Amino acid sequence: MELLSQQSSFEGRYMRYKHASAVNHCDMVFSVFVPPSALQSEEALKSTPVVYWLSGLTCTDENFMQKAGAHRIASDLGLILVAPDTSPRGDDVPDDPEKSYDFGHGAGFYVNATQAPWNEHYHMYDYIVYELPELLSGQLGMHGKAAIMGHSMGGHGALTIGLRHPDLYASISAFSPICNPVQCPWGQKAFSGYLGSDTEAWAEHDASLLLERVESHVPILVDQGSEDQFLNEQLGTKQLQKALKQNKGDSQFNMRDTYDHSYFFIASFIEEHLRFHAEHLQKSASL
Amino acid sequence: MELLSQQSSFEGRYMRYKHASAVNHCDMVFSVFVPPSALQSEEALKSTPVVYWLSGLTCTDENFMQKAGAHRIASDLGLILVAPDTSPRGDDVPDDPEKSYDFGHGAGFYVNATQAPWNEHYHMYDYIVYELPELLSGQLGMHGKAAIMGHSMGGHGALTIGLRHPDLYASISAFSPICNPVQCPWGQKAFSGYLGSDTEAWAEHDASLLLERVESHVPILVDQGSEDQFLNEQLGTKQLQKALKQNKGDSQFNMRDTYDHSYFFIASFIEEHLRFHAEHLQKSASL
Repeated sequence: MELLSQQSSFEGRYMRYKHASAVNHCDMVFSVFVPPSALQSEEALKSTPVVYWLSGLTCTDENFMQKAGAHRIASDLGLILVAPDTSPRGDDVPDDPEKSYDFGHGAGFYVNATQAPWNEHYHMYDYIVYELPELLSGQLGMHGKAAIMGHSMGGHGALTIGLRHPDLYASISAFSPICNPVQCPWGQKAFSGYLGSDTEAWAEHDASLLLERVESHVPILVDQGSEDQFLNEQLGTKQLQKALKQNKGDSQFNMRDTYDHSYFFIASFIEEHLRFHAEHLQKSASL
Repeated sequence: MELLSQQSSFEGRYMRYKHASAVNHCDMVFSVFVPPSALQSEEALKSTPVVYWLSGLTCTDENFMQKAGAHRIASDLGLILVAPDTSPRGDDVPDDPEKSYDFGHGAGFYVNATQAPWNEHYHMYDYIVYELPELLSGQLGMHGKAAIMGHSMGGHGALTIGLRHPDLYASISAFSPICNPVQCPWGQKAFSGYLGSDTEAWAEHDASLLLERVESHVPILVDQGSEDQFLNEQLGTKQLQKALKQNKGDSQFNMRDTYDHSYFFIASFIEEHLRFHAEHLQKSASL
């Protein structure tokens, strides 16, 4: 791994790393914030909990770190924050021929593509679930318990990955998630492209459908803005609300009046989300 | 004025406006954050104090609003935040023929240019001191007391404008300011271009030289990162430290170990700066 940059932030360190990805077959970059408490010793770093942040369409590893105001709270609560990129990238990685913002580069949708030409590189599911945690523990000495969260496409990623791997995450949260991708234009375009016509495979990556199939014991927190410009056409929020209620797991859904889809919305409520994760990570660590 | 966008943030409203600038002879865009307390009534808005933020080289009106984490604190303290652009812009506004980042568009240096071709549009000094406050009071109903702050080139702007207009600002603060522009490459390039060879005019826009000339009664707070990549070549920080000591005004200078020139540094200490301004704005309002 190559350390691209490191900067002080709220008494902690913000770092960006580049590495050759075994599952995506290209170089990947990710961002990590280490709180001051974890900088004290290898032992402290080893046991500090890790919160994964999955970003939305068009984002890189940097948006969340720069705009969410999360460092302040992670510094205070003693949380490591990890933000991967949203897709494989590079000249060798195929991109949407039409260069649209919602497919190809910047739009990996946190699945393992099965269709050519995407299946050589687009394995964001395995990257988040397996490769990135192994890098953090094996190369950076971070072995703490994990939680997962994200925004929009990344909210979809956090919910689906978290629901499918309750053993790996103490808690799940999402801002403005794509809740029912099999039913919306963004999801249909991405799943058709990456997964082909196998709608059974699609269903494995749809939070609302997964909640009907699994019994969720992992606490879930979702925040959604009432003036989100994508609320009606893309997000499928009502399906998620219904599925959360029927699932009877430990979940909370907040509709936030007047907020939109932007990082201003995320920043306004990030503290509640990180406190939620810190609480469940602490419970999980004491089991 | 045209309202370009408005978004909820920390229970307040973040807005961007476009208007024809009388002093810059082009359209200008600025950002404003209004805290929830000021949204209650026209009367509340009228008396809410206003903190001006002047940004650094290459920035627009948006960087501070997106990256500094300031909305949270302004919402809490009841402060309006106003961030102008860093220069006039547009196809009709001359830019550096070499398209450098440190002259022309994005690099107005908060002076009134006297040299052709810059003198038609580059009047950022008058824009900040006169035009923008008149717009805020005349068109948006914001008549509160003001304070001024900024970063890098904008730290230079805040210090020089604040020192020259002690009647207009209750307090002044700066992150990583260009402190002695007549002695550094950035300042010499900008002042030569905008002000010509009249070094007496230069001195009127140099914070360290101004502090030798004026008796400052306006409280000043400066934060500087010890690992700032521009510390040695560009900022002239030692000259400012010396001038602040000799001036015997009410000032505080903090050298922050390990921090750099970035918005991560600003975000880490913005709360202290906004609390500093809120305190002095309150004192000023009760006089």
